[in-house]
This record gives sequence, C-alpha cells and structure tokens, in this order.
Amino acid sequence: MATRKNDRRAGTRRLEFVVIECVTPELDGGRYPVKRIVGDTVSVGADIIKEGHDELTARVLYKGPGDDDWSASAMQYDFDDDRWYGAFTVDRIGQWTFTIEARTDRFSTWRSELKKKVAAGQDVSSELIEGAQLARAASRGTRSSATRASLLHTAKLLEDRRDTAIEKRIQRALDDDFLTLMQEYTRPADLTRFRRDVSIVVDRERARFASWYELFPRSLGTFADAAKRLPAVAELGFDVVYLPPIHPIGRTFRKGKNNSLTPGPDDVGSPWAIGNEQGGHTAVDPALGALDDFDKFVAAARALRMDVALDYALQCSPDHPWVKEHPEWFHVRPDGTIKYAENPPKKYQDIYPLNFWCDDRQALWDACRDVLFFWIGHGVKTFRVDNPHTKPFAFWEWVIQEVHARHPDVIFFAEAFTRPKRMKSLAKLGFTMSYTYFTWKNEAWDLTAYLEELTQSPAVEYYRGNLFANTPDILNEYLVSGGRPAFRVRLLLAGTLLPLYGIYSGFELIENVPVRLGSEEYLDSEKYQLRPRDFNAAGNINDDIKRLNAIRRGEPALQAYANLTFHASENPAVLFYRKASHEPVVQWTSNKGHPVPAGVLEALGVKTKGGHDVLVAVNLDPHSPQETMVHVPIADMGIAADEAYVVHDLLTDARYTWRGERNYIRLDPNVRPGHVFRVEREVVAP
Amino acid sequence: MATRKNDRRAGTRRLEFVVIECVTPELDGGRYPVKRIVGDTVSVGADIIKEGHDELTARVLYKGPGDDDWSASAMQYDFDDDRWYGAFTVDRIGQWTFTIEARTDRFSTWRSELKKKVAAGQDVSSELIEGAQLARAASRGTRSSATRASLLHTAKLLEDRRDTAIEKRIQRALDDDFLTLMQEYTRPADLTRFRRDVSIVVDRERARFASWYELFPRSLGTFADAAKRLPAVAELGFDVVYLPPIHPIGRTFRKGKNNSLTPGPDDVGSPWAIGNEQGGHTAVDPALGALDDFDKFVAAARALRMDVALDYALQCSPDHPWVKEHPEWFHVRPDGTIKYAENPPKKYQDIYPLNFWCDDRQALWDACRDVLFFWIGHGVKTFRVDNPHTKPFAFWEWVIQEVHARHPDVIFFAEAFTRPKRMKSLAKLGFTMSYTYFTWKNEAWDLTAYLEELTQSPAVEYYRGNLFANTPDILNEYLVSGGRPAFRVRLLLAGTLLPLYGIYSGFELIENVPVRLGSEEYLDSEKYQLRPRDFNAAGNINDDIKRLNAIRRGEPALQAYANLTFHASENPAVLFYRKASHEPVVQWTSNKGHPVPAGVLEALGVKTKGGHDVLVAVNLDPHSPQETMVHVPIADMGIAADEAYVVHDLLTDARYTWRGERNYIRLDPNVRPGHVFRVEREVVAP
Repeated sequence: MATRKNDRRAGTRRLEFVVIECVTPELDGGRYPVKRIVGDTVSVGADIIKEGHDELTARVLYKGPGDDDWSASAMQYDFDDDRWYGAFTVDRIGQWTFTIEARTDRFSTWRSELKKKVAAGQDVSSELIEGAQLARAASRGTRSSATRASLLHTAKLLEDRRDTAIEKRIQRALDDDFLTLMQEYTRPADLTRFRRDVSIVVDRERARFASWYELFPRSLGTFADAAKRLPAVAELGFDVVYLPPIHPIGRTFRKGKNNSLTPGPDDVGSPWAIGNEQGGHTAVDPALGALDDFDKFVAAARALRMDVALDYALQCSPDHPWVKEHPEWFHVRPDGTIKYAENPPKKYQDIYPLNFWCDDRQALWDACRDVLFFWIGHGVKTFRVDNPHTKPFAFWEWVIQEVHARHPDVIFFAEAFTRPKRMKSLAKLGFTMSYTYFTWKNEAWDLTAYLEELTQSPAVEYYRGNLFANTPDILNEYLVSGGRPAFRVRLLLAGTLLPLYGIYSGFELIENVPVRLGSEEYLDSEKYQLRPRDFNAAGNINDDIKRLNAIRRGEPALQAYANLTFHASENPAVLFYRKASHEPVVQWTSNKGHPVPAGVLEALGVKTKGGHDVLVAVNLDPHSPQETMVHVPIADMGIAADEAYVVHDLLTDARYTWRGERNYIRLDPNVRPGHVFRVEREVVAP
Repeated sequence: MATRKNDRRAGTRRLEFVVIECVTPELDGGRYPVKRIVGDTVSVGADIIKEGHDELTARVLYKGPGDDDWSASAMQYDFDDDRWYGAFTVDRIGQWTFTIEARTDRFSTWRSELKKKVAAGQDVSSELIEGAQLARAASRGTRSSATRASLLHTAKLLEDRRDTAIEKRIQRALDDDFLTLMQEYTRPADLTRFRRDVSIVVDRERARFASWYELFPRSLGTFADAAKRLPAVAELGFDVVYLPPIHPIGRTFRKGKNNSLTPGPDDVGSPWAIGNEQGGHTAVDPALGALDDFDKFVAAARALRMDVALDYALQCSPDHPWVKEHPEWFHVRPDGTIKYAENPPKKYQDIYPLNFWCDDRQALWDACRDVLFFWIGHGVKTFRVDNPHTKPFAFWEWVIQEVHARHPDVIFFAEAFTRPKRMKSLAKLGFTMSYTYFTWKNEAWDLTAYLEELTQSPAVEYYRGNLFANTPDILNEYLVSGGRPAFRVRLLLAGTLLPLYGIYSGFELIENVPVRLGSEEYLDSEKYQLRPRDFNAAGNINDDIKRLNAIRRGEPALQAYANLTFHASENPAVLFYRKASHEPVVQWTSNKGHPVPAGVLEALGVKTKGGHDVLVAVNLDPHSPQETMVHVPIADMGIAADEAYVVHDLLTDARYTWRGERNYIRLDPNVRPGHVFRVEREVVAP
C-alpha cells in the first residue's frame, strides 16, 4: 500500500497522510489503559486533519478479548467542534483495544465536485471520464462478478462521448446505487492509522456499582458462625462482604488490646500480623475453622448473590513460614536479624516488610501472585489491598496484569491513604477501585469540591472512588460528636454521592467511642480484640441501610458515577445535589472535558443510562433542624419554568408537587437526615 | 544494572522503579517538539512517585545539537505541588532533547532515619554498621584512591564496636563531608529514566521578536531600485523585508488588473502564478534584474541588519518549466491535459497545483526542498509559506526537518487562514511562526478572548502568532471605514500585543480603498499591477511606525510573548493591557497551566526577562474621543495600594504620577490612538 512505499522513502518518520490527534479516551499518551464496565458504550473522539478540500471518512477499529480481527464502526464528523466521533460497545470483560483509521473519500469528493459543476452548468465530460476510471479501479476490488459487471457497465456509460448521452451519464454518475457500490469497493490510497492502539480495561458491574460491608469473622466466632450472619447482611442489601485477614496470626510482639505492647495470654492479636507456625498467606486461622469451612462461607455468600472480598496485606509476622523458608525475601540487618517495619522513631516489631527488590525478586513476586491465584481458586474474586503505596508501584502493575490475564473479572481495591498523585497513580497502574478522603469531608464546600474532583475531572477515566463511611482505622470526629444523626447523614451521603460505598460493621450500631479524645482509633478496637455484637440493639440504623440499598438497586441514576452535580442551597448546612438520569458523555483530552454534542450521540445511536433524575438534599448539621430553599436545575432537566413536577421521596414515600427552580426544604436530624427525591413528571391531584 | 536484569524477567513492560509522569514541557505525548528561543531557560517539571518513605533525587538530562553526552542538572522538589522542577538553558540554535532521571537517595534516607533514631535516643549500632556497608559499596565506585581511602576509613570507624566510640561514630556518620562523598559515589540501585526523550526546537531570536515589512519590489522598479528603498525601511525600524514571489510570471490565463480574466498586453500578472519560459522557482523575473542583483539586494538588507524573507508558493503557472519537464508531478486529466486549480465552481486556470502523492513523489518532494536550499544558498533564511494548508501536512513536517537538519536557523512562516485546528497542527508539525485572525478582531472582547487564547494556553509551547495589520489579500472594513485613526490604532495594537507583527507597504500611507464595498480586496491591487508610491505623501504614519519600533527595541516586555494580560477598563471602547516585565513561568500539562512557584525558580536560579512593566491603553473607536477609568493590577506589579508610581508614555514622553488601581485616561483618535506607559517607580516632583 502507498503508506508502505512511502515508509521506506520518507526517512525518519512514517508518513501520516492524515493527521489524527487528540484521541479520546486516552490516558497519559497511551501509557495506561482507561477503565469501563461491561456493557458500556465507549465514545471515541479525534481531531482528523488533512490539507485541502477533500472529503474524509474515518472509523474506529476495536478488538475485544480473544478477537483476532478488528471490528469497525464509522465515525461522524461534527462541524462545530471540527471533530470526529465514534462509538462501540464493550460487551465482554477483559482487555480491549481500539484505534482510528482515516482516509480520503475520493469518490464522494469527486461526486460533490461534479454536482457543483453541473449546478454551475460547466462542461463535465472530463469529470465523467474520471468517474469511469474510478469505477474501473473499484471493479478490480471486488470478487463478485455481478458487482464488477455493474461497475464496468457504469464505466462504459460514463465514457460514452456522444453529446446526446450527457444527461444519462450525469444521472448515472450521481445515482445512489453507484455511490453505495463505490463506497464499498473504492480502494483507499491514503489510509492512515492512528499511531497507537489504545487499551481499555473492561471490568464487571460490581467494579462500579456495589455496596460493601466489612466484618471481622472472629468476632462472630468461626466461619460457620459468620456464615449464619450472611443472610442478615444480604437482607440489608449489601453486595460485597469484606473480611480483614483470615490467616494465622503472629505471636512475636503480638499486640494486645487497644494496641498495647504488653498483650495478655488470651489476646488474639492483629489479623494484619500475618503468619505463624500454622501457616501464612494461604492458610486460615484454625480458630476460624478449616479451609473447607471458608469454602462453605464463600458458597453461602454466593448463594445470597454476595461476593466475598479478602484482605491482601503483603507483610509477615516474625513467625510467618516465609521468614524461615525465604529469609532472603526480607531486609536483613548487618547482625543477620531481619528488619521489622518502622517509621523512625516509630517501630512496628510485629511486622516484617518484604524486600520487593531482593536478589530473588522474581520468586518473591511470583509467590505473592500465587497467593492471589490460591484464593481465586477458592472463589474469591475481590481483593482489598492493604497499603499498596508502601510496596513498589511496578509490582502492582505487574501482578494485576498477571492476574487479569487469567481472571479478568478480579477486582482490586486500593487502600492507599496518601498524597493524591500517589493514589491516582495506583489507579492508573491497574487498581479497579480506591478508597477516598470522604471520611474527612464533612462540610458542604468540602464535599462539593472533592466529589467534583472525583466525578468531573479526567480521573473518571481510571479512578473509581469507593466511599467508606468508616473503617477499623477511621472513626471520624464528626461521628463521635454527632452521634446517631451523624451516622445517618454519612450513610446517606456515601450511598447516594457515588455508586460504590461501604461501612464497617458496628457502624449500624452507632459505635463511636474513640480510644482517646481526638483519636480516630476506636476504643477496644476490633483490630486487637473480639467484638461480639447484638446487631438488633436499640438505636441501630438497619432500616436506613436496608432502605438505602434498596433505593440504590432501584434507581439507575444512583448506579452511575459521573452524573453527579451540586446545586445551590441557600443554607450551607444543607447539601443539595442531582444524580442525573442520563450520564453526560464527556471526552477528556487530558485536563479538558469535551461534552459530546447530543446530535452526534443520536447519530451514533449512543444510549446513556435511562431512568429518573434523583435529587438529594442532606442536612449536614446533626444537631439541629435546618431549612433552606434549594435551586433545582430544571433547565438541565428539561422542565419548563412554569411546569409542575413531582418529587417522590424514596425514603418516606411522600410525594410533593414542585414548580420552578426554588423550592423549600426543612430537615430535622432527629427525624431524618435528608430527602432522596425521584423526579416524576405526572403530577398528583391536589 | 538492576533495571536490565529486571527487564528480562518482568515480562511485557520494562519495570519502572519510580513512576515519572506529567512531564513538562511536552507536546501530545512527545509526538511534536516544543519551541524555544536561543538563550531561553527551559523550566522542566515532573510528578515523580515511589512507594514508602525513601528520599528521592531527580535530575534533568539534556543534550544540545552535536552533543554526544547528556548534561545533567539537579531537580528541586516542591512539597505543596508534590512536584519536581528543573531547568536548563538552551544556548545554541537547533534541536535539543531532554529527559528525566530519578532514583532513591539511599544514603540520605539512611542518614535522616539515623538522625531521628539518635534524636529518640534509640540504639543505632546496627544502623552504623549499615552505614559502613554503604561506605564500602561507594568506595568501589571511585577511581580516586584518596576518596576510596577516606570512605574505607569512615567504614572502619562506623564499625568500631567499642561503646566508647559511639559518639564519634554518630558524629562521623552525620558529618557533611561524608554526605558529600556519598552523594557523589553511591551507585544507585533503582535508577529510572523517563520513557521518552522530549524534543525542543530552538530558534534564533527573530523567531519570537521581529517587525516585518512586506513590499513588492516590482512597484519600485528593479531589485536595484528596491535596494534604494531599504535604508528608509530600516530607518522605520523593521527587521524583516518580505517579498512576494520574485520569479518569472506565467503568461497563460494571466490575470489582468483587479483580477480580471482579460488582461491587457502590458499587464504584469500575479507573482503567485509562478514560472514561464524564463524559469521557475529558482529563477528571478528578468524585469527585476538578474540573480546577481537579488544577491546585492540581500547584501544591502543584511548591511542594514535586516533579513530578506521570500515567498514559498508551491504551485506552477501552465508555463512553468516543471510542466514540460515533469508532467507526472501534476494532476493529469483523462484527456492528457493538466488540471488547473479549482474550488468548484470556481476555476483558477492560471495555476497548476502539484500532485504531492504522484508516483514520483520523492523526486517532487526533493525538488521542492531543493528550491529552499537554492535560496538559502543566496542568503535567504526566512520563508513566508503560501497556503501551507493546501499541501500535505506530512510534506511540511518532512521538508522543515530536512532544512533544519542542515540550516537550523531558517524560519518558516505559515500563511494558513483556515480552521484553528489546522493552523495549530501546522505549527506543531514545524512552522516557526504563523499568521493569525488578528485582522478580524477589532473589538475589545474579541481581541481579549483571541489574544488570551494565543498567549495563555498550551499553544504558547508551539504556536507563535505574527500580527500582520494588513496583507495584499486583507484590507479589513475597520481600516476602510476608520481611516487614518484606525490605521494608527491597528498599528499600535499589532506592535504591542505580541513581539511579532508586520505591515504590508501602503499601510503607512493609509491605503484603504476596496475594489468594491464589502470586499477585503484592494482596488487596483498590487497583486495584479504596479503601485508606485510616494512614501512621504501627506498623512503618512511613518513617525508612528518609527516610534513604535524604537519602543519595541527598547522594552524587553514588548519582546516577550506570554507576558500579556488584559485588565479592566470601564469603557469597552478602550482596551487596556499589561506586558509584564517578568514573563510568567508556566508549565503546560496539556490543557492545564501550572505556574512554577517563585521559591522554586529562585532555587533553580531561573531568571525571567527583566526590564519595566508596560501598560497599554488603546482607544478602539477611530471616530470619537473616549475616556475611562482603567484598573492597574498594582498587586501583581508589587505596588502598594497607597504607593505613587510614574507611568511614562513612551509615545509622547509625558510622565504622570498615578496612585492606586483606578486611574483616568482620555484618548482622542485625532490626536493619538493610545498610551504606551513604561511603569517607573521614582516619582516626579510636583
């Protein structure tokens, strides 16, 4: 093909007949894949530039897991944006790639110039001969003898030099049937491919929409006891049950209650101090039962349509088998002893960090990977990764790729509370979802700024925040001082701001006593001791949780990520936001968002998620009732200024008829934390 | 090195010990070079990310034309931005490259942890032994026996296990001399190089700061006559004299006066219809003299420190030698005739476009390139390229690289009036500077929006606008209706908004009669006939031009590009802007601008252009006096609210003492178009 020939002769760079740039979606010039969910329609964009007036055509080429050949879908040109748009649907989990191909549409160019000349009454006999040449060239491109015959027949007709024939010749030159044939069989002379294949990692649905529940099985007894709790968790509407490490726990420097360094004989220790003589990362703590009991636990969860998520904490207690078997995998001190974890002057003597760059690196990395394969073999497809930012980023990129190559449906959840760039980098390198700063955002301005950063920035291409309302490490002061109303507020926020959220058990029971004033650690933390609970104790918010999770499952708007916008509330104590029924289709070229024009979406047949708009108002003040006027973005919602609409509170089932932008809201924290309004158009009779 | 070993074993991708991303300056993921001017300091930025708490060091590696080895300059970390910054100066014209290298600073990490432990009174004997090991390792990295001896001596001392020695050991471990040695000789284990080498094209000064003057030599007579005009042009203060095509002019379908298709026998034709039996792109029109006369013209210009710019118009008249010698370089119609240019239904029968993708492509491209080499051989280092957007973009990238490989000081000026993305693409592909939409921006809001797009966007990395106030093709209605005052306004705007500007001769004589109402074509356009002129005719604005160009040469602020900001004027008829004495140092990661913190610039020793702030106020209304209050950005200029400062009008030499932000201005178009204030701090006595 022409390109090839030019290749050799053009010297340095392969000639690009057509400039293809500013391609979306693309992350850091193709260095990292972007993320999508199975079933998503990927909207693609590109600036495609060529000299002169020739007409261009462009298409997206895309390939799913296991595909040998590219599929193609035509791109549409938008004149106002001077940009090309395309779309395709990723219908399987795994790694997809796409690229873009553009070329001159020689026939259409010839055809529209001919039209203009005919309209101007110019002599076009020479143009018709050219058309004949194009037809003959195209005829060589087809195997179907009928097509070839038709094209050659047309060529003859176009060459008919008799003046009497001119009308018929023009007619034939411009007729649609000829156009169709030519578009199919004209061989392009200047086909140009975008210089990169762009990767897309396509995850399963729960990578974007899931409700998480964290529990320590040992506080319930054994796996068998914990399994008895599962139906209740399922009934609360959770999708994922996350277990802190379930492995044998170290004895050396074991931590006592409330993190004391002087444990009693019965202290159970921190599950994150992994490994003892009974085994390491691929063993279960005998106190919980046998591996077989764990399998039953997983099966029970699956029967309830719940995933079990395990903790993946790459560190060892001094008693971990690896310490004896592979001392070379750790940091050895000059005196031959192994280095414990420290952040000088702090020491964590119950933990040995792994030396990921030791001479036996590959064996260590393989072993770490095989831990994942082991648990995947036991039905675990979700891993909550402990402190990934303290292990080499290169390791994460490698191990996640290794696992996804065999098990593309595995979800990795990064527990990195560190500087934003590090958290984003881990997400780019492959983590499916990530913890966030949500627990520390308790005021309207702060929540707004942070959630806009998560949902209205290029981060939406790779960073999926999972809003945990509490964790065994984080009991926020807002919960301590705000009590039950505060817990209800945070639950509602977590479950409606983003489709991914979670709580750590005890939250539903308003556990909020810190180990000491100003600390985010729990008193009698479950990290170091058993916490048996009465989950139906008075004051629990099980009903809130059950209702919220049911609403989330019923409303598509609450299952989408980038459809969040904040709107004016005249009282800063009340946060007001919209989850749009239709997710905006925005293409991110680096830091700039380009909304795809509605007309283009239609032309491409792109459906954005349907359903109702949801409006949420939350009283962030857990202490006193607050009232305000909220400003409903009726224009964006296609509601006329004088049009009445119904807001249906899915928490209370109450319906109100509203009109116009400004509407009144009053929220008493002792009654309810907020409203979750489904916007319905049919008005209720007064 | 470690990296290598890991390469083989890590499978797919080379392991990156350290993540290096978001590198600036970089254009489209390294696809295109960014542009700088010789003498510029290039400020480099990067996000550099590694797990854990280790201390990092990073440096910029850079290479100038002809360098075999990299030079290095240390990068500084800014905690607030969580970003690394570096800088280097490009002191030669040509192609530069840079990249970034980062690694763990093992010794500093060890040292600061030791400090903390010592401060906490912990036992550090083991740490000291580690220090000894680091010292021994480093000693193997040096050839100097003295250094080796010192390091080994230190190692011994650190290993001294006698308790009595502990004080001395710690002292030695922490002393600066040891630190210096170790920083020089510690061999890094995890050196990581950014995955790309980034290119920078470094041009000569006139690529950013120059005043252009366009003239048709034939209207002055011969080259010899034209040369006589040069001293006057130089006296007006111009740096570049640009000549439309000087080649023999076609006879077939020659255009007559005012673009008529029925020329008279004496009509001289359009110089853009290049070539006749007397020669083509490498010949001069005998009417202008011989090649030798052209050489003298160039020499005369050079003697006056002016460059001569030639028009590079890749098209041929039907009489061009190439048509006979290389018909295969053109588009041939079925009847064997050659295709003239057309934009149906319009025909341009006096012009044959070249077929850049003909089978003999390489020969044609070489011939086009050799035309440039020919004129470069005759002292021409600047080319104004006619309609580049109608020739293949791949050709431009190729031919500019070919020329710059041998003559990096050649300037290419793109005359592309087309869609913004095309204009930008040509600039990215290599054009040194570009025409703009300036002539069509005549209102304050429009000028502001457009100039901000040019000077406060990523375009500053590659797109240099040259503000021509008129051209032989563009006589804007504003000049037609505004008369002399309008010409003075446009001149002042062009010459102060950006460091690159130009006029086409006749502008100084207020020539503004269009061929017909509403047309941007001149009546009796010089494109088709001779236009002898009396350059001292009454009403000329030579003094304006002379003064403006002198001011431009005197004020560094007017020689910088990205230092333009617009400020409030309470009357939209008056445009008010600042050219800052210090050009802001902004790093563009795609569409987002990151100003480099002042502290960092200081630490890196980056000097931004000095001189005075310049404030410009222009009355855009050529018909009536306008008065307004303008808002001086005193805060940005480091002037206190109550501080008096002098604004010195460089046009009139008048001085006013101002105080505070709001100050009064009145401008009468019949007196002067505006003020060009140099801001001086010493206050004049009342």
